[in-house]
Amino acid sequence: MNAEILSVGTELLLGDIVNTNTQYIAKGLAELGINVYRQSVVGDNPKRLKSSMEESLGRADLVIVTGGLGPTKDDLTREVAADVLGKKLILDEEILRGIQGFFDQIKVTMEKSNRKQAYLPEGALAIENPNGTSPGILLEEGEKIMILLPGPPRELQPMFDNHIRPRLKKYGQGLVKSKVLNIFGIGESTMEAMVDDLMEAQDNPSLAPYCMKEGLILRITARARREEEADAMIRSLEEKVRERLGSYVYGTDHESLEEAVVEALLKKEYTISVAESCTGGLIAAKITNVPGASRIFPLSIVTYSEASKNTLLGISKENLKSHGTVSKETAIAMAKGIRKKGGTALGLAITGVAGPGGGTAKKPVGTIHIALVLGDRVFHEEKRLLGDRNRIRHMAAKHALNLVRKAVMEQ
Amino acid sequence: MNAEILSVGTELLLGDIVNTNTQYIAKGLAELGINVYRQSVVGDNPKRLKSSMEESLGRADLVIVTGGLGPTKDDLTREVAADVLGKKLILDEEILRGIQGFFDQIKVTMEKSNRKQAYLPEGALAIENPNGTSPGILLEEGEKIMILLPGPPRELQPMFDNHIRPRLKKYGQGLVKSKVLNIFGIGESTMEAMVDDLMEAQDNPSLAPYCMKEGLILRITARARREEEADAMIRSLEEKVRERLGSYVYGTDHESLEEAVVEALLKKEYTISVAESCTGGLIAAKITNVPGASRIFPLSIVTYSEASKNTLLGISKENLKSHGTVSKETAIAMAKGIRKKGGTALGLAITGVAGPGGGTAKKPVGTIHIALVLGDRVFHEEKRLLGDRNRIRHMAAKHALNLVRKAVMEQ
Repeated sequence: MNAEILSVGTELLLGDIVNTNTQYIAKGLAELGINVYRQSVVGDNPKRLKSSMEESLGRADLVIVTGGLGPTKDDLTREVAADVLGKKLILDEEILRGIQGFFDQIKVTMEKSNRKQAYLPEGALAIENPNGTSPGILLEEGEKIMILLPGPPRELQPMFDNHIRPRLKKYGQGLVKSKVLNIFGIGESTMEAMVDDLMEAQDNPSLAPYCMKEGLILRITARARREEEADAMIRSLEEKVRERLGSYVYGTDHESLEEAVVEALLKKEYTISVAESCTGGLIAAKITNVPGASRIFPLSIVTYSEASKNTLLGISKENLKSHGTVSKETAIAMAKGIRKKGGTALGLAITGVAGPGGGTAKKPVGTIHIALVLGDRVFHEEKRLLGDRNRIRHMAAKHALNLVRKAVMEQ
Repeated sequence: MNAEILSVGTELLLGDIVNTNTQYIAKGLAELGINVYRQSVVGDNPKRLKSSMEESLGRADLVIVTGGLGPTKDDLTREVAADVLGKKLILDEEILRGIQGFFDQIKVTMEKSNRKQAYLPEGALAIENPNGTSPGILLEEGEKIMILLPGPPRELQPMFDNHIRPRLKKYGQGLVKSKVLNIFGIGESTMEAMVDDLMEAQDNPSLAPYCMKEGLILRITARARREEEADAMIRSLEEKVRERLGSYVYGTDHESLEEAVVEALLKKEYTISVAESCTGGLIAAKITNVPGASRIFPLSIVTYSEASKNTLLGISKENLKSHGTVSKETAIAMAKGIRKKGGTALGLAITGVAGPGGGTAKKPVGTIHIALVLGDRVFHEEKRLLGDRNRIRHMAAKHALNLVRKAVMEQ
């Protein structure tokens, strides 16, 4: 089976947004062993959309169309698809009730315009959308399959994973499986030097480094006839990589550093409280984004002012004055103070200069002190981070989380 | 003039990378007033690449092709373009010397394969590439223009900005300027109903709604001969939209809700402290991501456990027991408690069920209580949010920030 992906949206043609939907679907189809020969983007224009759809259907067995299923007048995908396949649009009462229910649940009055999202081309199958109002639409016409999915990624992605992938599985030739190893604590070139020979030697499974927005990853990809075969190939290469990289590998696939931290704490039955200055709540926000975090995390305080460091964490004004708020001593005093306040096994603290202002020659923007107390042990790390305020804060939070992870694992 | 963008690369078809080049070029062309009607991606396959190029040249006056100019056997763009236009490829000695010079500079021996990058189709113009080995290629054939650019963004972007944009300027129909109004507090369909007639009535400037990851926006786009003209058109439509939407518009262009909040607080010289439960530090993290936030934000506490609500915010155990932690009463008590602790003008608090666990029939996942105290006034909002844990937490934080913004603006 070969496929094409067609994205609809003037915002794509204008370059207002990046086409991540196409990438998401392309990746999913590649994993299923379905070839994608072309991807296209057209605007919210019925004539051009129609000819694009016709061309794609002429060339491919499967056409996945994203976008243009919204309630506004610009949204034309449903109508044009029906037209191309010569189908009537029919109101589906059950979908209408679903949309009505969606608005009832969020206590908002449904607009008239949303009604059009309840129409389906004759003979089409609706695909449930728990995160929005428009269902997906699956159309089969002879040998051809056309699938329409809504544009917002948080609606499209679960629909694709939960409904489209399972349905398309039977059409794939062989399968492609991949596993991601998440890395923290080394740079890309250092990492590459550590696994260089493995990258060179292997074609299947292959090993490739990527520098993603979320951090450094190594992707292992295997092609095989059967799933177990691919899994075994991946497992064998993964072992070799882990031997080289040790604790720089903090997790796999979608696992985040904070998930690894919460998991490690739960395993050891440790609790943690956090005192943040420069990261301003980011560490707490990351930890609490993990379901179940409440079992290990009772309290964090963002002591953004000097006064609050004094009154809430009991750090003496003399201490703050002699060492400065951004110092090893203050970080350790904060960690001890918050552990006491929270009554937890661990106390984590961070203080630093996030910028853009506040830097000095001795403590330039990006200077970070992290302290962790655990039993009788005190850990301290000083970092000099590069980048803008946002990057420095995120990287500082990650270094703090990684310190916790390593310290707890060593226990 | 109308244009198409054609990207070449199997890594795009496989979904290994996101197509940021197309977005970059599309945005640049939109700013020049050149219409892009279609974007396509094809793989490193000569037959399919040839037919894609021919189709694009058939429909558009300008075709910009990205990728496939590298030294490997897979890289076919140069060869196929020459074939499509019926041109011979000729070795350009000057380009060859340039490539040799590039390798000398980085002290690497030039591979034989790089020689092919020194070939140009007859009559073509080479575009300098200071960040790589392959020049860009500009071809004119009758009324048609075809431009070939290398795939790596750090090569493509400066070439596009420094050489292609200036050259294409004359083909643009005036210039296109746009301004984004950021919206919070209403859904897409409600918003549209409020400005429906303005969207219908206007073609230039145009008004279009988008649902971005960051939230809802309205984009005003004006085409004009001169910048001042476009600015005036935008200003006039913006006024009308603001009249309709009032305080639902919280900012423009890249301004975030937290920036609007910090700005409003600074203007009124108000300070704020925050007590968070379900958002777990997210509100603090958002506020402190704004440079200068330290002037209005001394303290926040994440009271994730019941005990910490009691000991740190002084909420009686009876209160917590009779109303529950997720209640109007607890939210208000938290807001009063944190204001006292922080010694600030405002106290903001939030408590809710972020999920996936913890929901009940009366208080399902997504139930959020926000409270704000300001002088003698107490504000309270209850929301039912949908989505996963991450989305509920982000939306809850946004609703809380928006409540602060509205309350402070009203003062």
